[in-house]
Amino acid sequence: MSADPRTTPAAYDAVDLIRAKRDGGALPADAIAWLVDAYTHGRVADEQMSAFLMAVCWRGLTADELDHWTAAMVASGERADLGGLPRPTVDKHSTGGVGDKVSLVLTPLVAACGAAVPQAAGRGLGHTGGTLDKMEAIPGWRADLDTGRMREILTDVGGVICAAGPRLAPADRRLYALRDVTATVESIPLIASSIMSKKIAEGTSSLVLDVKVGTGAFMTSMDDAHELARTMVRLGDRAGVRTQALLTAMDTPLGRTAGNGPEVAEAVATLRGAGPADLVEITVALARVMLDLAGLGPVAPDPAELLASGAAFKVWRAMVAAQGGDPDAALPVPAFTRVVPAPASGYLSRLEARAVGVAAWRLGAGRARKEDPVSAAAGLRWFAGVGERVRAGEPLIELYSDDESTFPRAIEALAGAVAVTAEPPAFAPLVLAHIR
Amino acid sequence: MSADPRTTPAAYDAVDLIRAKRDGGALPADAIAWLVDAYTHGRVADEQMSAFLMAVCWRGLTADELDHWTAAMVASGERADLGGLPRPTVDKHSTGGVGDKVSLVLTPLVAACGAAVPQAAGRGLGHTGGTLDKMEAIPGWRADLDTGRMREILTDVGGVICAAGPRLAPADRRLYALRDVTATVESIPLIASSIMSKKIAEGTSSLVLDVKVGTGAFMTSMDDAHELARTMVRLGDRAGVRTQALLTAMDTPLGRTAGNGPEVAEAVATLRGAGPADLVEITVALARVMLDLAGLGPVAPDPAELLASGAAFKVWRAMVAAQGGDPDAALPVPAFTRVVPAPASGYLSRLEARAVGVAAWRLGAGRARKEDPVSAAAGLRWFAGVGERVRAGEPLIELYSDDESTFPRAIEALAGAVAVTAEPPAFAPLVLAHIR
Repeated sequence: MSADPRTTPAAYDAVDLIRAKRDGGALPADAIAWLVDAYTHGRVADEQMSAFLMAVCWRGLTADELDHWTAAMVASGERADLGGLPRPTVDKHSTGGVGDKVSLVLTPLVAACGAAVPQAAGRGLGHTGGTLDKMEAIPGWRADLDTGRMREILTDVGGVICAAGPRLAPADRRLYALRDVTATVESIPLIASSIMSKKIAEGTSSLVLDVKVGTGAFMTSMDDAHELARTMVRLGDRAGVRTQALLTAMDTPLGRTAGNGPEVAEAVATLRGAGPADLVEITVALARVMLDLAGLGPVAPDPAELLASGAAFKVWRAMVAAQGGDPDAALPVPAFTRVVPAPASGYLSRLEARAVGVAAWRLGAGRARKEDPVSAAAGLRWFAGVGERVRAGEPLIELYSDDESTFPRAIEALAGAVAVTAEPPAFAPLVLAHIR
Repeated sequence: MSADPRTTPAAYDAVDLIRAKRDGGALPADAIAWLVDAYTHGRVADEQMSAFLMAVCWRGLTADELDHWTAAMVASGERADLGGLPRPTVDKHSTGGVGDKVSLVLTPLVAACGAAVPQAAGRGLGHTGGTLDKMEAIPGWRADLDTGRMREILTDVGGVICAAGPRLAPADRRLYALRDVTATVESIPLIASSIMSKKIAEGTSSLVLDVKVGTGAFMTSMDDAHELARTMVRLGDRAGVRTQALLTAMDTPLGRTAGNGPEVAEAVATLRGAGPADLVEITVALARVMLDLAGLGPVAPDPAELLASGAAFKVWRAMVAAQGGDPDAALPVPAFTRVVPAPASGYLSRLEARAVGVAAWRLGAGRARKEDPVSAAAGLRWFAGVGERVRAGEPLIELYSDDESTFPRAIEALAGAVAVTAEPPAFAPLVLAHIR
């Protein structure tokens, strides 16, 4: 039998490739393509891939290896075709933070400014919420769209938030599940390739990354956040997706709410021109980068004005309706509420993001396992932001839950998360760096 | 329900333990015991253990961790009881070299000197042969013994070479199979614990380790060999097995033969007082350490004399007969032989051990997969040792095989392995260090 060299992939031995990476070597393009393909099709076993992934945590990947690794993940599925739309496409991805409802405001805002925003989003796991979980608090709204319907909505409305379909980078889904149970999640090249393979496959022409850094973010050090941002920007550019990143602070939760329904309500208020300053600042900053990337910088209206004028809100209503949602329906109401008073009078100088995220999660807003349901009504709202005055004994935080028994452990999570001081805290910038 | 703390193991999460090791932490005794037990019983998945093993390749194990890891592997099965025998027990383990038939000579020799030698041995994989494969070249000889029969032979004869039973450290068997396919074999703590868990479970009171170092050995650097030896000596001592190690050279194969039947023939010649000098030197050196460890140093006869006198050969005959073998039976004869002549006249200055091992393996003496059969007759014999004179065109190496088609690739393996020079090579010591 003679093998056709055009269809027979180069034969590698998984053990040789693991050993090479373990010893600090760099693998050639063919070897990486073989490894990802063989793993996706079950010819390389989970125990071999997990050993390889741990070796990557140890030794890293070179820039070339990472390009090939990411390309192999994209090649494991379909790359959506969003070419030929009447508007330039531009998307945003956030590495995840507490109270991060930016996508809900930004997508209709950038669409209102003239771009098409094809946001393929995910559900949440752990203490940060997922964009789809938030949108699903809206009665009737559905996350699943095929590419044809996505193109229609992008043409008619300009913005779409939908589920990343199973055919986008399926290798990433298998790899992510494996990394989750083998403590190989926290590796910058693996994080970067996981995010970028899905965004490249999604079909957008350009992309802004909101890389969160701080105690409530996945990246807690500035150095790591910079490296992740630079790695993803380079990966996007090399794959033909114009990519830039903002590093933004995530020590304090964004806005005044955490939880699915509560964050939708806050996003709607923001789209009606009454949003909290931090949420507006980050959203407008990201919108400006997106419009530049889409080539609309010189001609687009000012996003700050379109947010204030209600123009973005009109697009939001059309987006929600296009996916079966009722933009006028009341959001779910929690069965129980509980108030936490301010512990002292003075300035709120700290509201720790991770603690707020864990509290929201314990109230029912998040899931511990990916098959768990989430509550649409559960969450928190705080009446003062960091730097504002509070008075001892007056309500500081309101907790929402469908299950009264969740309150004690949620309140426990908040212990030590709040500080009130006599002097106002030092000014802390929100947008920390722009990587391009 | 209340759990009984005496019987309920502490609950750990495999992901937490992998993460802790990945980040360079040290695990407590309970965590290691839980991990090995949970893996052995299938509650920790292969992909989790392989990630942990790669993290160990990266971060190592502390001395305490390694003690606990080894103890957990011993505890996964039975620890044989060899107490109450009329002689002190002492065993030897070699890390494996080419032409290493030392166990076949050493076991009856040390028994002849008055100790009991309970050698639980293994089969070979790759370019170094296994002691059981060699013994099985003897017609009728059987490797499997239960502990009762082993005690009987140790009492009556003094020496046993048998298969390490499936109940000795079963966790090691599972872990070794996993390490083999995940490129996590080459880690000093994992090698040390694999060897020592079996030797501790075997029930011997004392142990000498023959740690081979050189191009034909698993350890090619002196530093690594020293570290492995020190690690195993410490592990043995802490587990109550008096342990010492010799570091011995393995750049040149031992004796004048490689292959199962050929090595048995050479061992028999050595037991009859006509062995090659290098094999005799290493065997006697190991025997002296063993007799000291067994507490027989001041009273035992000189092993060099018992080898020369034929006393050890009598024990060999009894050992072979006790396990069904016929000590007078002819050994299998190869169907084909091929002679490689000396390439020049002068001194044989190099005969590279790994190349000889690979040649023997290709001739049929070794196996590529553990279920493969091995040939009893296949192998090599060389007519001169390093440092001896050779003459161009006269026979230097004779190859044996049951399959004529194996000769070309065996001869290919030997290309570059032989050097003949005008001046004799510098003296190279065989025993390099004694670790106690």
